[in-house]
Order: sequence, then structure tokens, then C-alpha cells
Amino acid sequence: LEDERADEILSEISTEARGETERLLAYPADSAGGLMTTEFVSVPEDITVEEALTNVRNVARAGRREAMHTVYATDARGIVRGVFSLRELLAAPHGARVADISWADVVSVPPTADREEVARLTSKYDLVAIPVVDDGRVLGVVTVDDVIDAMVEVQTEDTQRQGAVAPLEQPYFQAGFWNIARKRGGWLVLLFVAEMLTGTAMRHYESTIASALSLMFFVPLIISSGGNSGSQSSALITRALAVGDVELRDGWRVLSRELGQGLALGAFLGAIGFVRAVMWGNSSDLAAVVAITLLAVVLTGTLVGAALPLAFTRFGLDPAIASSPFVASFVDIAGILIYFSVATRMLTHG
Amino acid sequence: LEDERADEILSEISTEARGETERLLAYPADSAGGLMTTEFVSVPEDITVEEALTNVRNVARAGRREAMHTVYATDARGIVRGVFSLRELLAAPHGARVADISWADVVSVPPTADREEVARLTSKYDLVAIPVVDDGRVLGVVTVDDVIDAMVEVQTEDTQRQGAVAPLEQPYFQAGFWNIARKRGGWLVLLFVAEMLTGTAMRHYESTIASALSLMFFVPLIISSGGNSGSQSSALITRALAVGDVELRDGWRVLSRELGQGLALGAFLGAIGFVRAVMWGNSSDLAAVVAITLLAVVLTGTLVGAALPLAFTRFGLDPAIASSPFVASFVDIAGILIYFSVATRMLTHG
Repeated sequence: LEDERADEILSEISTEARGETERLLAYPADSAGGLMTTEFVSVPEDITVEEALTNVRNVARAGRREAMHTVYATDARGIVRGVFSLRELLAAPHGARVADISWADVVSVPPTADREEVARLTSKYDLVAIPVVDDGRVLGVVTVDDVIDAMVEVQTEDTQRQGAVAPLEQPYFQAGFWNIARKRGGWLVLLFVAEMLTGTAMRHYESTIASALSLMFFVPLIISSGGNSGSQSSALITRALAVGDVELRDGWRVLSRELGQGLALGAFLGAIGFVRAVMWGNSSDLAAVVAITLLAVVLTGTLVGAALPLAFTRFGLDPAIASSPFVASFVDIAGILIYFSVATRMLTHG
Repeated sequence: LEDERADEILSEISTEARGETERLLAYPADSAGGLMTTEFVSVPEDITVEEALTNVRNVARAGRREAMHTVYATDARGIVRGVFSLRELLAAPHGARVADISWADVVSVPPTADREEVARLTSKYDLVAIPVVDDGRVLGVVTVDDVIDAMVEVQTEDTQRQGAVAPLEQPYFQAGFWNIARKRGGWLVLLFVAEMLTGTAMRHYESTIASALSLMFFVPLIISSGGNSGSQSSALITRALAVGDVELRDGWRVLSRELGQGLALGAFLGAIGFVRAVMWGNSSDLAAVVAITLLAVVLTGTLVGAALPLAFTRFGLDPAIASSPFVASFVDIAGILIYFSVATRMLTHG
């Protein structure tokens, strides 16, 4: 909410509700605190299930409690001690106490947890609501429908970011033409300026190129191979980080694995490239330049593609950015520098 | 499930349960029928809520009913007439009938609906369970935890596909080294072979290139601009299709909008490219070739990027494939053909 609009709303609601709403506004909209509703139900752990059921029915009849799939059991100081579902409440035998039917392991998040973390835990533990707990007290709950909305929003932003579009924040047809053009144009120009460096790099090797024009025919092939192997690594690692298969402390294990992938895939593409270069009637020297470059470029792409999502995560940025064309531009430039420096060394002294 | 393994499991379960399990196995795993559980609760619509509550408690105590967040109200023939939540059941006044508290608008899916459709409806209507209905009868329900699992799986496959990796189907560290290498290598080689056409295209224009070597320094810049604008369009349209902002019948509206975007962004990049080419000391003829090519290439990228997700959807394929490097390779080749044919025409007659 913008500040002005928020003030307007606040002045319209009662003073009683105001304190709560102000507290909610204090949390960022994409944190657990910003996503939660404070309309949940809790009961003392030492009452019977029949008393709890009467409590819950009274709360339900009073309305205004939307998050009723799970009920929290608290001790005398208000500290959460357990959780149970409405179904478990209904299934409880006569005479049982709340403490008997509640689960002591309460999966919860702090109010500062980001929405990706909330989604990950909800998904991992198959929850319909996750409590937001601070100092042992339940502040609110994030219900599964809000988790799904957050997941859809995160996915939309990630897809747009990977396509080098600044998040639109509006449906495609609602967003204005020049609004979209601006959100695309900014990135496109940035990428364009970055890609200009490929031309600068090539001009640096003008004499090598003039003496072996055939080198040029392999430029798009070589830079796209680096970009594609880099996209593969960043897609795999970004996703593995998102679902929790890979964590930051696995960094070195990931890099050594991707080093192996880069060597294997690079050697394979290098071999195909060698054969193709010879078939086009090039010297075996030039074919060797192409093969060695392909190995080096695929290896670079793989390592950069794997390292960047880890580095972005480390510094609190969205790792999905690592799959964007911005990284591809970087790998393009690296590819050209590798290619022509290998060519200059191998073809001029040969 | 593989057929053999499924047979093994079937032989271990009782004949009674067998009929049901066999029916479930008949639906594809990623359809509503494959995702649903048949453990849901329904009650006749003409009983009182107290009777319904007793029914529900008996079912809950008997165990084996996992999907109890919502209860379905049926008529004498078993046709579903309404739905209500456990909370609404508990909130109902004494003496009310099931028909009084149930909602007549039941959002449901047929058993053949795919998991994307199930996720879209669950998300749109904030459901915790969606009934799978055939001929007016509830066959089962898909609960929200299974919807979330399906969403996560779809997102993982889409991310991997957009990174040109065949879906791994296993966590990153569990998947074997050569298994991953194969799933990457297949795509990488396919893309490599496709990118070889860029070299073939360039060789075709060898005499033009030899007479104006400076043309070569713009090749990576030009093909990446086409690829980037294409990625933007395909990311926007793929996502808009996924969340339902754009539908197939909007095809022409989408294309006319992207035509405008392509012209605006292409003219802008073309202008920057013209200035850059002149600053590098090229003739204004060559700078004009670069500018015209950039306009044409960005326009091509934009239109292809927008058209492919629509075309893939039309033919029942996953539109996410359109964001893959495979489309980028196509745009690369188109870019080179446009560039050198513009150059051949403008530079040889000038």
C-alpha cells in the first residue's frame, strides 16, 4: 500500500481495529507478517475437546474468523504448545482433552520469513495454514490460499525476469502499451549496450580475423553453446535452490559437479565441432581452435551458470535473475575473448 | 506408475479396494482424476446440520477420510447440489438443514482436466479442495496440498525446459551424473546442430563479408537483440496464458500488440545501433544496414516469441517450450539471413 492511501484507510476504521492493522502494515507485503491474517482460533490446552468444540462453534458463529482449518493449543502464558485440525477435533473421543489430540511439533515461521520460505514449508509439510510465531506466541496465520497467490505471483515475476522484462504487476492486456515498452526497453537497451562489447572484443582481433575469415563462421555457434550450457546450469541450480534440494552450504559440491558436466559436455561438443570444421574444408589447426574453444566456453558457461544463482542467493538477491539474458551476454563476451585469444595463439605461431 | 510395479501393488491390496485403485490408475497421473483422492465426505441435502455433524464425526472417527475441509451435499440420486466447509457446518444455527448452509455454485473439474487447470481454478477461487465431478456425481476431490505439489512440479519442469534440460524427475544431487549429462547433452547437441546453420548461412554471403569485414563485428549484437526481444514476448505471453490473462481467442489482439512493441523497440535499438556504427568509423551505408536489420530482427523476434506460445497451446503442447533456447536458435538464423541479405542489397548496388 502506498502511504497516503494507507492513511486514508486507517482513518476509516475503528480505533480498536486500528492498532492491529497498523501492526500488519509494519511488515513488508511479501513477508509472512504481511501475508498473515490475525483471524485464527486458539484454545487452552487443558480444556476438554467438547469444551473446545463449543468454543470453536461460538467463534465460527461470531463470524470474522476466516482461518479455521487448524486450531492452536496454548498454555496459561499464551505460548503455543500444539496444533490440531477441525477434523481431529471432530474425531476425538468423548472426554479427551485438547492436549491429547494436539500435535506438539508446530511447523511455524517468524513474521520476517519471506514468501518463498512460507511457500516452501507449506508445500513440504502439506499444510493448509502455517502459524506466524514470535517469542512462542502465534501472531497470525498464513492460509493456503494466500500461499498459492504468493506462489503464482513469484512465478510470474520470475518468468518475466528470466525473459528480461521488469515485472509488469498487471495483467498483459491491462498494462499500458508504453508502460510495457518501457519495462522491456530498459532491459533491452542494457543488454544491447552489454552486447556491444562483443563487437569491441572482435575489433581487437581484427588482424587475426582478416587472416582467417573462416573463423567468423563459428562465432554464433560458439557463443550460443556457452549461453545454452550456462542456461542449463542456472536453470537446474535456481530450481534446486527454490525447492530446497540445494542449499548455500552445498556450493562447492555443486561447482565440482558442474565442473564435471562442463568438461563432459564441452568435450562432446568440441568433438562434433572439430568434425564439422574439417568437413567445411578448414585446416585441422582451425578445427582444433574451434574444438578447444568449445570445451573452454561450455566449461565457462556451466561454471558461471551454476555459480551465479548461488552468489545471488548469498547476497540476498533473487537467484532467478541468473537465468536472464544478462548472464547470457556476459558469457557471449567471454566466449569471443576465449575464441580469438586461442585462435591468435594457435594460428599465428603455427 | 510403471505397469509392472502397479500390478505388484495391486496384488497386495484387498479385492475390495482393488476396484477403486484400478479406476484411479486409469486416469493419467497429471489429470484431475489422477490427482484426486476418493476419501471425501458427502451428506444428503435434506438432513439437519446436527445430523450432518454427527455423520461427519462418525466418518472422522472411522479414519481413512483425509479430505474433510469441505463436505458435499447430494440429492436422493447422488447428484451434487451444494458444498459447505466444516467451519460453516460448525457455525450453522440449531435446526438448520444442510440445504440452508450449502453453496449451490460448486466449482468443479472433470476427471480429464489437466493439473494446470486444477491449479488455476484452485488459485482463482481460493479453494482448499476441488471436487472432480462426472455426470453430476463427485468421483473424488483434489486437495490443496496435492495442487501445490502439482504446481511445484509444473514449475520445476517449466524452468528446466526453459533452460533446455529434459525434466530431471529427481532432486539435483540424487540424479546420477551421467543421467544429468544425457538429459542436457541431448538438447545441447540438438541446439548445436541448429546453430550450425548460422555458419552455413554466413558462408552463403562470403563475398559480401569479404568486401566489408566490419559487418562481422555486429553479428553477435544483432542476433542477441532478436533473441532477447523474442524471450521477452514469449515470457510475457507464456505467463499470461498460464494465469489465464490471455486466451487462445485473443491471438490476433496479442499479435497486433506485439507488432507495435516490435516496431517501437526495434526503431529505438536501430537508432542506437546507427549511432554506434558511425562512431566506430563505419560508412553511413553500413550504419543504415545495421539499423534496418535491428528493426527487422527485433520485430521478427517479438512476433515469433508471441506467436509460438499461442501455437504450442493451440496444438496441446506446453507453451513454456517457446521460451527455450530452441526458439532463440531459430531467431539467430533468421537474424543472420536478414542481416546479410539487407547488406548484400544495400552495399553492392551503392
